Amino acid sequence: MVEETNLLYEGKAKKVYETNDPNLLIIYFKDDATAFNGKKHAVIDEKGALNKAITVKAFGWMNECGIPNHFVEENSGREIVVKRLKMVPVEVVVRNIAAGSIAKRLGLKQGEKLPRPVIEFYYKSDELDDPMINEDHITAFGWANEDTIKKIKDMALKVNDCLKEKFDKAGIELVDFKLEFGFDNDGNLLVGDEFTPDGSRLWDKETGEVLDKDRFRKDLGDLIEGYEKIMMKISRV
Amino acid sequence: MVEETNLLYEGKAKKVYETNDPNLLIIYFKDDATAFNGKKHAVIDEKGALNKAITVKAFGWMNECGIPNHFVEENSGREIVVKRLKMVPVEVVVRNIAAGSIAKRLGLKQGEKLPRPVIEFYYKSDELDDPMINEDHITAFGWANEDTIKKIKDMALKVNDCLKEKFDKAGIELVDFKLEFGFDNDGNLLVGDEFTPDGSRLWDKETGEVLDKDRFRKDLGDLIEGYEKIMMKISRV
Repeated sequence: MVEETNLLYEGKAKKVYETNDPNLLIIYFKDDATAFNGKKHAVIDEKGALNKAITVKAFGWMNECGIPNHFVEENSGREIVVKRLKMVPVEVVVRNIAAGSIAKRLGLKQGEKLPRPVIEFYYKSDELDDPMINEDHITAFGWANEDTIKKIKDMALKVNDCLKEKFDKAGIELVDFKLEFGFDNDGNLLVGDEFTPDGSRLWDKETGEVLDKDRFRKDLGDLIEGYEKIMMKISRV
Repeated sequence: MVEETNLLYEGKAKKVYETNDPNLLIIYFKDDATAFNGKKHAVIDEKGALNKAITVKAFGWMNECGIPNHFVEENSGREIVVKRLKMVPVEVVVRNIAAGSIAKRLGLKQGEKLPRPVIEFYYKSDELDDPMINEDHITAFGWANEDTIKKIKDMALKVNDCLKEKFDKAGIELVDFKLEFGFDNDGNLLVGDEFTPDGSRLWDKETGEVLDKDRFRKDLGDLIEGYEKIMMKISRV
């Protein structure tokens, strides 16, 4: 039985604990919602439970697709047990449809389908507001080497193929999402962190309704209602 | 004799003319100085003449280093004759030392030497304020293919090696600079556009004095005095 020992890290929407097994961590999903690098904040009942359930489903789908990831098992209510990874300090964003920062940056229309999936990298730094970076920044500053970047891009596109199809079956458009990667003890590159509507854009395929955290960022409606709709839809796939 | 026919394009600091030879263009260097995407503007006597002379010197150095570029010959006072290229709509920035946007973006100290030269890409769009992009944006939107990006990076680093050494001999630190690339009629990739202190950072090696357009951007002193110092120093190399 895996048991929490020390709190390793507390982020905006998660706590990460060390456990009695040095190779395993526990992730606890909090009810906090933040946006604009923490400038907007709320505590929203049940958000943590829904994020946990959606993450479990997404990692389950990755397993079905044969994509190596850190998920080990569910724990109590808001917790999952994961492999301890040495994380690459880079957020990897995959985009299928223009929304949010890419629409603004490149003057694209919200909702415009991109010519093909586009990958972006952001340096993980709250202090710097997670700035967009390129592959040359990553290698020059030693955040990852060229080989790792290539593997990350390949895996990110595989995750996209896998999840896009699954969400499609659930009646949801996978607009974009964020992934993080890390190495296990044997040097294998795995998908780490989480997959939740906090870090992805998910639109109802029929109605176009925004179901993800943009509801909170842009005051588009009750957050939990959106997350519950996602959970209901994906539970059938 | 190459003669101007139609004005093809007028930018913030340059005019580009078609000529009686369909394969040649004339670039005219204006006296205008702008910063912050045109929000700050001045007309500074002699700036165009100095930019032209510095550009001629820089392309001469590239020729000495065997780097293919569009420069053909000097014309009258503020003009140069260049090959007509099909331009890649991307600005290529090479950085040796942290200054300006990279310092802000990555939380680096102004003047901090980078671990190695770093290349950045910006999408040429006044409307969008020349946003930073990555290689995936470039290929996804068809601005250049992977092979061209690889060639551009190789050439940009060669230009850096070449110019860094020449400026060093002139007592100037090459902090960073912007290049543009294009294809000639035979499909060769050439360095196009200009090399001026408008699009580069050049510091006096001994005193650290800023000699480039940051004098104007940041009100650090008379612009022409800086450009004249550059011209005097490099004319000896």
